[in-house]
Amino acid sequence: MTNDEHAVPPVIALGEKLARMSDPWTPKVVAQLNDYHCKLAKLEGAFVWHSHPETDELFLVVEGEMGIAFRGDRTVRLRPGEMIVVPAGMEHKPFAETSCSVLLIEPAGTVNTGDTGGDRTAPADDWI
Amino acid sequence: MTNDEHAVPPVIALGEKLARMSDPWTPKVVAQLNDYHCKLAKLEGAFVWHSHPETDELFLVVEGEMGIAFRGDRTVRLRPGEMIVVPAGMEHKPFAETSCSVLLIEPAGTVNTGDTGGDRTAPADDWI
Repeated sequence: MTNDEHAVPPVIALGEKLARMSDPWTPKVVAQLNDYHCKLAKLEGAFVWHSHPETDELFLVVEGEMGIAFRGDRTVRLRPGEMIVVPAGMEHKPFAETSCSVLLIEPAGTVNTGDTGGDRTAPADDWI
Repeated sequence: MTNDEHAVPPVIALGEKLARMSDPWTPKVVAQLNDYHCKLAKLEGAFVWHSHPETDELFLVVEGEMGIAFRGDRTVRLRPGEMIVVPAGMEHKPFAETSCSVLLIEPAGTVNTGDTGGDRTAPADDWI
């Protein structure tokens, strides 16, 4: 296959995707990078404590402000244009006092609730 | 090792990193996600045609506007908040008519000039 036979890859406008999302804590895949997924999520209120034993997880704030609590009464706050990589196995609890939109990057199939599971678990492979 | 022994991961402010960068086409690593690197780069003028045979490459525009030319006289343009994943092996030529700042995500060790090489090749592992 020559390059001319490849379709030009799509431009992904994060704001346009977010405008079609409403449910908090329900990530939607917007792009695949090798075996990684780029997901958008809206956050509002507090999520559950969890960790991802097998993988680091990247959060980049697109709109609004979020916090992440870590064990030991430690909390960080992130605003638009700020990112963090939570190491594999580190327990964390994301929260947002008002609505916040984030870009997540992690291996395809990574579940939002990690090793905690429960009724906050969202599908890992829903695209928008 | 318990979680309490882990340091809280740093918040990475993309704007603060970019304010300390000046040379175009010289990516700087700002974070590691498993075996991937998140890099910031300033773009100005035209880069070289190249491809990365082994990996997809993600571009997310942070400031300014960039274009990417593909073979077959096809060009896409990206503005802040817009991203694209260039598939492995697809020849592309990034450009920016004025200064543009982008976040790149790709496996650690990926070289900016891909399989083309030459004097536009920058170190793949310089952190800022």
